Amino acid sequence: MKAKKIVIVGGVASGPAAAAEARRTDENATITLIEKGPDISYSACEMPLLISGEVEDDSRLVRHSPQAFSEKYGVEVLTHHEVESIDPERRKVSVRDFSTQNLNELPYDTLVVATGSAATIPEALTTQSKDVHLIRSLEDSRSMVTTLNSKTVHHAVIVGAGYVGLDIVESLLRRDIRVTMLASEGRILSNSLDAGISKEVVRHLESQGVNVRAERATRLDVAPDGALRAVETDAGEKIGCSLALIATGTRLLNSIGTAAGLKIGPGGGYQVDDQLRTSIPNIWACGDCIDREDVVTGQSILAPLALNAFRTGRVAGRNAARSGKGRPASVRPVVKVAAVSVCGLEIAHTGWSEEEGRKKGLNTTSVTIRHRSASSLSPHKALLVHLVAEPGTRRILGAQIVGEEGAAQRVNLITAMIRSGGTVDDLYELDFLYAPRLAPAHDALMIAARTMQKNLG
Amino acid sequence: MKAKKIVIVGGVASGPAAAAEARRTDENATITLIEKGPDISYSACEMPLLISGEVEDDSRLVRHSPQAFSEKYGVEVLTHHEVESIDPERRKVSVRDFSTQNLNELPYDTLVVATGSAATIPEALTTQSKDVHLIRSLEDSRSMVTTLNSKTVHHAVIVGAGYVGLDIVESLLRRDIRVTMLASEGRILSNSLDAGISKEVVRHLESQGVNVRAERATRLDVAPDGALRAVETDAGEKIGCSLALIATGTRLLNSIGTAAGLKIGPGGGYQVDDQLRTSIPNIWACGDCIDREDVVTGQSILAPLALNAFRTGRVAGRNAARSGKGRPASVRPVVKVAAVSVCGLEIAHTGWSEEEGRKKGLNTTSVTIRHRSASSLSPHKALLVHLVAEPGTRRILGAQIVGEEGAAQRVNLITAMIRSGGTVDDLYELDFLYAPRLAPAHDALMIAARTMQKNLG
Repeated sequence: MKAKKIVIVGGVASGPAAAAEARRTDENATITLIEKGPDISYSACEMPLLISGEVEDDSRLVRHSPQAFSEKYGVEVLTHHEVESIDPERRKVSVRDFSTQNLNELPYDTLVVATGSAATIPEALTTQSKDVHLIRSLEDSRSMVTTLNSKTVHHAVIVGAGYVGLDIVESLLRRDIRVTMLASEGRILSNSLDAGISKEVVRHLESQGVNVRAERATRLDVAPDGALRAVETDAGEKIGCSLALIATGTRLLNSIGTAAGLKIGPGGGYQVDDQLRTSIPNIWACGDCIDREDVVTGQSILAPLALNAFRTGRVAGRNAARSGKGRPASVRPVVKVAAVSVCGLEIAHTGWSEEEGRKKGLNTTSVTIRHRSASSLSPHKALLVHLVAEPGTRRILGAQIVGEEGAAQRVNLITAMIRSGGTVDDLYELDFLYAPRLAPAHDALMIAARTMQKNLG
Repeated sequence: MKAKKIVIVGGVASGPAAAAEARRTDENATITLIEKGPDISYSACEMPLLISGEVEDDSRLVRHSPQAFSEKYGVEVLTHHEVESIDPERRKVSVRDFSTQNLNELPYDTLVVATGSAATIPEALTTQSKDVHLIRSLEDSRSMVTTLNSKTVHHAVIVGAGYVGLDIVESLLRRDIRVTMLASEGRILSNSLDAGISKEVVRHLESQGVNVRAERATRLDVAPDGALRAVETDAGEKIGCSLALIATGTRLLNSIGTAAGLKIGPGGGYQVDDQLRTSIPNIWACGDCIDREDVVTGQSILAPLALNAFRTGRVAGRNAARSGKGRPASVRPVVKVAAVSVCGLEIAHTGWSEEEGRKKGLNTTSVTIRHRSASSLSPHKALLVHLVAEPGTRRILGAQIVGEEGAAQRVNLITAMIRSGGTVDDLYELDFLYAPRLAPAHDALMIAARTMQKNLG
């Protein structure tokens, strides 16, 4: 029997997971992993630790070098190569080799698309200046570290107030760099946090010396020698700085698939079934670039998270390699969760915020309560819990928790309850641990649930 | 209409909760709360903070003094009074007034029994020495603080290795007192932790200078002046010390109820229904002294936990006061959970240990894994997770988690999964947060679930 040819496009997280699982599934297959950048199999989420200087050697973020991955899994790894098109009829991809600029055809029996997403840059902020950075790839991070090591930066401007922006605030503060953050409408993590919680986070950032401004960057003032001089805003401000990060969002890298006829789902990613099959036979997709089913609404959403990248990669890799043998692997619907640690504050959320939930047609109600991480007589930290639920069914839709400790783990508990269809009554009745040094007699989540019970009657 | 007479027996935690809720339910009732000790409404779980000296004023552990409680809720509070018998036919209790030694009859329309439990003392360790202590009531704790403040204690022996023993280890270490713990069969928290985890905890305690001995105390060597000289053990050792704590267990204080004919359940506590009605009309029971339904097995168990004391107190108080108006309150089945912090280690458990589960007829399997509380590149602590499940159904039965951070909160998540009937597959598929400074890419719970999946096939 001829060896199966499996081609995997995209090498950051989901692609390597797919390649490794494909190898575990079929020891004879010919597997090719194609990545347009120089690196594969690295931890993008840990890049802030590189930028802060906490991690000095960037290879510590790399799980496998291309060569090590190739040797470990018997996978041909083509870095500096980009798939420019897919021909589903002839089962071939056209691959550009950046070192020679040659375009070659590569045949496949099965194809896995894991092209992920890229940072978006508003046109007005496009520049060649070495002082203006994105943080999307390991290359981007190395470039920022190079800039930080080549000169003394006193003040940096971060354009955007999403997870990447907050991560880099933390990194720069650890380098004793003063930071100004331009947050559209003054909102932090506006897709995840409701207005009240966002305000609390802004207040905390400002108390730690971060200047958060409800302004939009309109222009970069770059000297003729390429040095950044200032970021200009729609308020007419000219904010002097010698470093800027553009972290205004991402866009899916779905063009090769759509050109080949792969259907796009309502969420904007590739439409896939629970086995991660796309709309075209022999093509699977995984990672950030696919639509997923949301546990709460049943609707299609994007869930660009590291854990989803690994999970969907393993499922796509298994199914692309299995040739009808054994049961196909499948994925479950997802709950969107995320967390970030900035200025000593854990910020974590799960499920739907009230604002985003309403946009999706959910009927929502919420409460916000303050409590402690432990008994008042023991050392403890403040916790702020914002709980979102559906009034009629009383089921929990989401939570946003902020505090110096215990926020992230409490969010995981709420995720488990969302998955099981738990109500605010279930949350109130939960057998929470009590130990004065570890948890208060009535947990913050219990108090939030009780407050909501009272509101709901 | 005549005011309803509600009598509540027991004033530590569940009784006051019942009294307060009874008042909320019926503003006209005559409510009497009877407590044999001098204190009511105090936080027994925080007594270790008093003994360590972290809290100096014992009134900080008291939520309401008898007078304050009486004024706030319009409840007659009889401290230093003990109910000696119940006459369900005539609906009267006989109450001994310790100040006069008089025995008076008190009529009731409804009665709430919240007598809790008491420390057990092996006969061989019974003594009048002021150096030998129990920690059950606030009085006990004051007495121990008095001893600690009256002389320099260099070495103390703790007889017993349950939650109370571990709490007081922590308290004494904080006073720079050397501690020897006598742990039956060398096991720590033997009703909660399986052998392997227990061993890990012993190793940690010993690394922190605690001497843990697998010996049983057989005799106290007390000088003629009452000073403790040594604790003798079944290994023939004579352990010199000037303070000892007897923490060998508790027994339920159910004698007045059983004498009156209240049925005892299979768990050893009063048999109650989900409205906390006992087997005799007009008598409810709550707190440590009742049987509860276990979520996992459906069997009757004791669940002597602070949160259960409050919850069952509120339900019993409501129902004893409601006179058929409105819907009765009810309790749900429980999951047994507990946690303690000792020598910087969080020790937490939920549900069934493998050993205890098997005794109850559960078919069990378990895994133990080691992981980290956060990314390897960020500051992190070790976590040890012991997960117990049922092989056939794959449902989670319990977990024991030990670590310097994140153990207690992870146990709460497992409790939520046990309640919803979650399986190891559900746990593996959970959308865990990932943020390098807060949680690793693959959570310890996820790795435990994955390991068990592999074992189960």
